[in-house]
Amino acid sequence: MMKNTIAPSFILLALSTIICVSPALADALEGVRSPGEILEASSPSDWRQLDPENTLYIDLERGRVVVAFSTQLAQRHVTQVKVLAREGYYDGLSFYRVIDGFVAQGGDAFGTRTFKEAQKNMPPEFEEPLSDRISVTLQGDLDGYAPKIGWIDSLPVGIDDKANTVWHLHCTGAFAFGRNNEKDSASTEFYIALQPQRYLDRNLTVFGRVVEGMEYLQMMRRASPPESEDDDLGETILSMRVAADVPEEERVNLEILDSSTETFAAYLEARRNRPGAFFYYRPDHVDICQFPVPVRTVSQE
Amino acid sequence: MMKNTIAPSFILLALSTIICVSPALADALEGVRSPGEILEASSPSDWRQLDPENTLYIDLERGRVVVAFSTQLAQRHVTQVKVLAREGYYDGLSFYRVIDGFVAQGGDAFGTRTFKEAQKNMPPEFEEPLSDRISVTLQGDLDGYAPKIGWIDSLPVGIDDKANTVWHLHCTGAFAFGRNNEKDSASTEFYIALQPQRYLDRNLTVFGRVVEGMEYLQMMRRASPPESEDDDLGETILSMRVAADVPEEERVNLEILDSSTETFAAYLEARRNRPGAFFYYRPDHVDICQFPVPVRTVSQE
Repeated sequence: MMKNTIAPSFILLALSTIICVSPALADALEGVRSPGEILEASSPSDWRQLDPENTLYIDLERGRVVVAFSTQLAQRHVTQVKVLAREGYYDGLSFYRVIDGFVAQGGDAFGTRTFKEAQKNMPPEFEEPLSDRISVTLQGDLDGYAPKIGWIDSLPVGIDDKANTVWHLHCTGAFAFGRNNEKDSASTEFYIALQPQRYLDRNLTVFGRVVEGMEYLQMMRRASPPESEDDDLGETILSMRVAADVPEEERVNLEILDSSTETFAAYLEARRNRPGAFFYYRPDHVDICQFPVPVRTVSQE
Repeated sequence: MMKNTIAPSFILLALSTIICVSPALADALEGVRSPGEILEASSPSDWRQLDPENTLYIDLERGRVVVAFSTQLAQRHVTQVKVLAREGYYDGLSFYRVIDGFVAQGGDAFGTRTFKEAQKNMPPEFEEPLSDRISVTLQGDLDGYAPKIGWIDSLPVGIDDKANTVWHLHCTGAFAFGRNNEKDSASTEFYIALQPQRYLDRNLTVFGRVVEGMEYLQMMRRASPPESEDDDLGETILSMRVAADVPEEERVNLEILDSSTETFAAYLEARRNRPGAFFYYRPDHVDICQFPVPVRTVSQE
């Protein structure tokens, strides 16, 4: 997930230190807008401001990780982690299991910290029934793991028409609760995917995604679960707070490109078939986990 | 890509702090071997020792990154980077462009360092004709970017039957040369994918993959191309050497699971449908970029 909306298109521009477009190619690409141009031409209504009540800040020494929670799925898990964050449960705990190419798992390595209002064993919300109250924007691309894919409020989902269920995907940045073998054994421990882990879809409850600060997780010291307090506990979670509880002047105000808009669809299409002169082959495909959802900082005027 | 062969299966065991398999489930899974069990039962001939002449060490302050070069594709690029490494071209240069979720690009940020025997503008090897000399092990899973996928000597490839071409994939760890807009503008600058970037397939020449030390790249300080020597040049490449040129006692001796073996196929199948009691849903699918190729250190007896 890119930090900056403009980055995805400019990255490839930056790859090119010399820009030479042959006249023939330039003609063929005329009128086809690049991902960057599509974002530049977007209107304010194409963007959705992150709701502070539905946004989590994980503050680390290196910087802040911002997680957008699901707005429609796994709402019991959203409530659970917010209750825990508000109790200060995670403050001072750590990312004690950080495995490169897999996940960064945080919480209480020893399971000794207590909580008050949160639930001990969460009923699973691995996937849930499709219903009229759930609004999905479908994405037409082929997917190997889900019969159909799409977006709910700019977070990626899988859909199974036969099972009539929907779930959030284990793309990079997916925020989920860990568990033991028992389906309902999730309580407090969470993990964030460092790479796509789609085989975990429908097996664990994903209920949010990192929209900013993913680099701080990737840069983290790798760690194995400690066996005693003398072992490396991994990097410390300075605090984990619901954005609404943070003084306004300390918040990061982010907007995410709204997946229900035509601009989002056009941006997706421009990545499916990149118009840039850099590209000689265009796959006519976008893997849903290889699509950096545009996020931008709201200008404070 | 996992550092340790045993890790992939044990990761999920580690997710479970309590192992409770119901008798019914245990019966259903009887006889189905886990990925870890398959590796444990492997024979020495299932593994291919990395050829030191075809292996690159990128030594960083944090540790060593090991790249296995393609054995059959893009051989002019393999030769080029080896010539450059042997001239000491990269020693003391840096990873000056490190963009989270995208690539880490290394080489000479200012393009002022000269080389002797290497080629100025490389003819592209984005994809090349399938021929009898190229031996591919096909993987049956659906792929959105390539008509067919498979493996050449344990590195992932795409295949287009109609175009009759084959190419290495931009999975995480892919080692490739950057270029300007012109097809033949690659010379010295390389990049390593930090996340899958499959839309770059067939547009740039991928000719190797990181098989160990990927975490050192993920942990790198993020950097934008500097405009002057006063800017941050990114993390330093202490040295970049062909393994064969490194004294034997300083080498890391790695073996990779041979993609042409039945053990590799069984391991892939066990990841397609995980037998572990942890799993409630099995996708019957493996994304080729979400398949950690087993690598192990050769025991020196």
